[in-house]
Amino acid sequence: MIIVLKPNSSRRDIAAVSAEIKRLGYSPHIMRGVARTVFGAVGDERQHASLESLSAWPQVESVTRIQKRYKLVSREAHPQNSTVTTRGVVIGGPKCVIMAGPCSVESERQLMITAEAVARAGATVLRGGAYKPRTSPYEFQGLGLKGLKLLAKARKATGLAVITELLSEDHVEQVAEYADILQIGARNAQNFQLLIAAAKTGLPVLLKRGLSMKIEEWLLAGEYVLANDNPNLMFCERGIRTFETYTRNTLDLSTIPIIKRESHCPVVIDPSQGGGRADLVAAFCKGSVAMGADALLIEVHPNPAEAWSDGAQQLSLEGFAALMKDLKPFLAAAGRE
Amino acid sequence: MIIVLKPNSSRRDIAAVSAEIKRLGYSPHIMRGVARTVFGAVGDERQHASLESLSAWPQVESVTRIQKRYKLVSREAHPQNSTVTTRGVVIGGPKCVIMAGPCSVESERQLMITAEAVARAGATVLRGGAYKPRTSPYEFQGLGLKGLKLLAKARKATGLAVITELLSEDHVEQVAEYADILQIGARNAQNFQLLIAAAKTGLPVLLKRGLSMKIEEWLLAGEYVLANDNPNLMFCERGIRTFETYTRNTLDLSTIPIIKRESHCPVVIDPSQGGGRADLVAAFCKGSVAMGADALLIEVHPNPAEAWSDGAQQLSLEGFAALMKDLKPFLAAAGRE
Amino acid sequence: MIIVLKPNSSRRDIAAVSAEIKRLGYSPHIMRGVARTVFGAVGDERQHASLESLSAWPQVESVTRIQKRYKLVSREAHPQNSTVTTRGVVIGGPKCVIMAGPCSVESERQLMITAEAVARAGATVLRGGAYKPRTSPYEFQGLGLKGLKLLAKARKATGLAVITELLSEDHVEQVAEYADILQIGARNAQNFQLLIAAAKTGLPVLLKRGLSMKIEEWLLAGEYVLANDNPNLMFCERGIRTFETYTRNTLDLSTIPIIKRESHCPVVIDPSQGGGRADLVAAFCKGSVAMGADALLIEVHPNPAEAWSDGAQQLSLEGFAALMKDLKPFLAAAGRE
Amino acid sequence: MIIVLKPNSSRRDIAAVSAEIKRLGYSPHIMRGVARTVFGAVGDERQHASLESLSAWPQVESVTRIQKRYKLVSREAHPQNSTVTTRGVVIGGPKCVIMAGPCSVESERQLMITAEAVARAGATVLRGGAYKPRTSPYEFQGLGLKGLKLLAKARKATGLAVITELLSEDHVEQVAEYADILQIGARNAQNFQLLIAAAKTGLPVLLKRGLSMKIEEWLLAGEYVLANDNPNLMFCERGIRTFETYTRNTLDLSTIPIIKRESHCPVVIDPSQGGGRADLVAAFCKGSVAMGADALLIEVHPNPAEAWSDGAQQLSLEGFAALMKDLKPFLAAAGRE
Repeated sequence: MIIVLKPNSSRRDIAAVSAEIKRLGYSPHIMRGVARTVFGAVGDERQHASLESLSAWPQVESVTRIQKRYKLVSREAHPQNSTVTTRGVVIGGPKCVIMAGPCSVESERQLMITAEAVARAGATVLRGGAYKPRTSPYEFQGLGLKGLKLLAKARKATGLAVITELLSEDHVEQVAEYADILQIGARNAQNFQLLIAAAKTGLPVLLKRGLSMKIEEWLLAGEYVLANDNPNLMFCERGIRTFETYTRNTLDLSTIPIIKRESHCPVVIDPSQGGGRADLVAAFCKGSVAMGADALLIEVHPNPAEAWSDGAQQLSLEGFAALMKDLKPFLAAAGRE
Repeated sequence: MIIVLKPNSSRRDIAAVSAEIKRLGYSPHIMRGVARTVFGAVGDERQHASLESLSAWPQVESVTRIQKRYKLVSREAHPQNSTVTTRGVVIGGPKCVIMAGPCSVESERQLMITAEAVARAGATVLRGGAYKPRTSPYEFQGLGLKGLKLLAKARKATGLAVITELLSEDHVEQVAEYADILQIGARNAQNFQLLIAAAKTGLPVLLKRGLSMKIEEWLLAGEYVLANDNPNLMFCERGIRTFETYTRNTLDLSTIPIIKRESHCPVVIDPSQGGGRADLVAAFCKGSVAMGADALLIEVHPNPAEAWSDGAQQLSLEGFAALMKDLKPFLAAAGRE
Repeated sequence: MIIVLKPNSSRRDIAAVSAEIKRLGYSPHIMRGVARTVFGAVGDERQHASLESLSAWPQVESVTRIQKRYKLVSREAHPQNSTVTTRGVVIGGPKCVIMAGPCSVESERQLMITAEAVARAGATVLRGGAYKPRTSPYEFQGLGLKGLKLLAKARKATGLAVITELLSEDHVEQVAEYADILQIGARNAQNFQLLIAAAKTGLPVLLKRGLSMKIEEWLLAGEYVLANDNPNLMFCERGIRTFETYTRNTLDLSTIPIIKRESHCPVVIDPSQGGGRADLVAAFCKGSVAMGADALLIEVHPNPAEAWSDGAQQLSLEGFAALMKDLKPFLAAAGRE
Repeated sequence: MIIVLKPNSSRRDIAAVSAEIKRLGYSPHIMRGVARTVFGAVGDERQHASLESLSAWPQVESVTRIQKRYKLVSREAHPQNSTVTTRGVVIGGPKCVIMAGPCSVESERQLMITAEAVARAGATVLRGGAYKPRTSPYEFQGLGLKGLKLLAKARKATGLAVITELLSEDHVEQVAEYADILQIGARNAQNFQLLIAAAKTGLPVLLKRGLSMKIEEWLLAGEYVLANDNPNLMFCERGIRTFETYTRNTLDLSTIPIIKRESHCPVVIDPSQGGGRADLVAAFCKGSVAMGADALLIEVHPNPAEAWSDGAQQLSLEGFAALMKDLKPFLAAAGRE
């Protein structure tokens, strides 16, 4: 920690800060600058009480952390890439994994048609919302258990692994029974109790970035999963909230190289939520692949114009198949199978 | 709904949109503009399937909602101000209610000293976190049940009503047993399952604005409470996330007149989280009172420099007492008791 | 400056950083932490070459500035409040100054009626745009010189001082001939050549905050004025750009206490641009006065519904007069005349 | 335009709106909805006075524009891609153009070494700042005319075309004498007088996106160039300002498909400013190429650790040469030469 004192602090003020640093288990190093006195406090910030309370002291101007706050998710702790494996699908390995399916599970017919089509086109994971978090209480909230059962049926028919959203601690057992990967949505990305509950299932967890989550906060939310003894974590960028209104969200593709640098966990991109527009999905997929994404999570619907949720951002079956073809040269350029 | 078609749409394209509008239960009104054809779709958007799926149609340029999406929280539905009453404290009435107390409950001594001091200075509600949502798993997570019991003890000693945060569906019964008001924190503001669970207790709910929540989304989150038969809802602004780094958040005081205009529910301001700095609290309180806030939620600690969480934003007991005095002329100017 | 090295930096890497710090004129203080080595570089950061180039070194993790980057605008340099005086109007003194008038000067009749009405209601400065920066080239761009002449005429008739926007270096002489205060608009807040040109006129400069300007950047833009030998600077908050769409901008009233803390220069609030809605102006003015604003800049038009620009945010003459009355108790509460 | 009236508007209120729509030259179409009356106003919004002033009417809830505000930059007006040509370099054609060079021109030696190295590695345009807009008045402001002359010398030696920033109307003639492409920086992106002055030179204009500029505003700023009879416009994304602090800006790569959809003008990406970190440049370039960028604008310096400005984001000569090789398969995948 670096503690900067206000200009003209008295000797007494300075001594008091020094004493407090010691009291909290750190060793203080003083530097007298041109206008300000600065302390470096040496000690493990994750072992001792935080020094941030010092910022409430009248003579203190600022307290700055040096050490990274995350540990288990960090690449320092685990220099090699880690991989997440479920039903034979390896995320974070040489193959870029395609997860595809409808925003919401609506019916057996809708799901089966989609599952077969996406499997044929190259997907290995089926996505589909059974429980849906909706901005308004008057919108379709998902088929619930019925949706989960349909996902299991589609898995049996196609061999696809299943990813679906977990949005309530009360659903953990039920969802964990049917899903292969638990998705934590953007609105629950700092619902820490849910993260802990998801971690404890032992299933792989795909953690979406919150709408206004800083990368450090996202890594720390992931830390909740690993700290609860579940190493099977993936980070999924799905667009952040900015001032721009042309797109629903602003997809932040810089997260691919940044998460790769800071963490060993796989990075997944959701190009459908990312812009909220089907006509941007292909470009986003190409960019993601080129930049090193480990997987893509794409919304596909047999008839987007009649979807019960988020029709505007879902690809048709044909659109998806065409995209899978178009991606091939980019996958090759990126050295992915 | 207003549906704008792309320039040069064919007669056939136009007819198809018209037919779809009818199929979904609306009555289509066509307007042929200079460059574009526009449909107005007349019908209750909360009764019928949404027309937003039309935006997935290739000939459609945009779909714009006319009707407001919220109903029960809106002032159209309930023109008079509504009030929330608990243990004789009325929020939304002529008196501006002061809620004060520590960020976290740390010990009996800390809580009792604070409760007595804030009661003496004019507060009528005691705040204190027993379960704490923390960005990092390595930070203090609150005393839990022990903290709730201390809050109840402080209530008994001082007569203050108690507000505390609910952050897990699994805690609902326990927290509801001890609290008079349930606080839903910013990170859970769109945790809809938690909102429903909180609503079902029948206790007053204070809903903080999410870090990047649009006002419309906030009102819709509140709608989840009223739609679950709990009319005792308060909206609490606590700062939004912007590009500015001088303050932790940007307190959006425009929410006071806006929520008053759009909704009948009381508006509360949290000046402590709002800026994350104790030295801004007094100015925020004065502005909030002048702009018509119904209540203030202020963090107070006997020794902010030793607080276990968020020391930098908590007032000392003396600072709080002085503030209560300073606010008097502003309360009088605003016509508040 | 604080320079943090990457974990496991070699002795040689560390020595190289130390040597570079010395070469650039600073004195290096080393601290060996648990995982990282940290240097404090002591020296005046405004006298020597910046050490920020060190962040390009492979062994360097981060470089953090300790010293404030602004000097002349800072309260450290000038502990007392400074005031700006023009035609007997003192901004930054005991009186809260009201600047009012139309968004754009449209005609002699419109301007004269407005000037007389706002003077009668208590304003002492007349605002009015002669040159208008417009988002689209197809929108009304202002009357130009004709508008300036009308402002001078209105000044003669009413005794009001005149503030108007300067938006081009090519207009400096012309605008300076007619105006008493030069307004630098949000879109030009980091047009440094324009700031220098405005400063050199010696006239008071009102510097609006840019749409996404951090407070530090705003203070540094103001530093351009003082560094060009013009001490007559005012900072004017007019709303920042956030994700919220209910209002055009988010008025950041926290700038009042923050600018007061960091700088000695007066703070002005523009409640009209601030929200872009006339129905929010009264609440913003009350909050601004309560929080300590030195002046208000309010858009007033004899017939807002027919205004040539920004009709939605202008008050009517009656609305303005009523507001002036309503503000009185808040001015009294704030200790302002 | 769509004008939505408030619920319970009287017949008289409705008739008044209808009359005003007619008075302003539009033809009103009325729709009576469930709760609200809505008008569609048919007419060319770029020919008549705006109806936005209607939003100041008490009975009006909202006024929404249907027509796009930009005309000349829009793909509707010019369905084919347009290209910009200078000294034989074609931007917007089959070849992805590489513009590279130092952030600031510092010396003849620095510029010549860089120019030769980037030309050798495949660049065809040389970038280099002679006039620099700097956040603080105490930072290096560029070599000015001397820098321009060095750029011309480097052009002569290497055959590279020259792009440099124009930041003052007073420099237009001088900069236009030496530059082949005028760059308008992010801070001046809505300095409309500067845009007009740049347009009038007839030289190609590269318009960077402002830090908080919506895409519509950016297109409208570009409209100022085309409306002043200069068709040689390029849009350059360089990162927007968001809440994230890991990177200096958030590079919004969605602008590539969006500008391609809305406009016929070429799209350029600045991966150096985009993140403010050299270690992200390669990933950004790969993503940009995959998503269809027409050109890249890359900062390169012989010794980034000693650069006079923005060292942290500049590539070394070797780094740049390696990147050019790495990009080849992605260029091939994107069908670019």
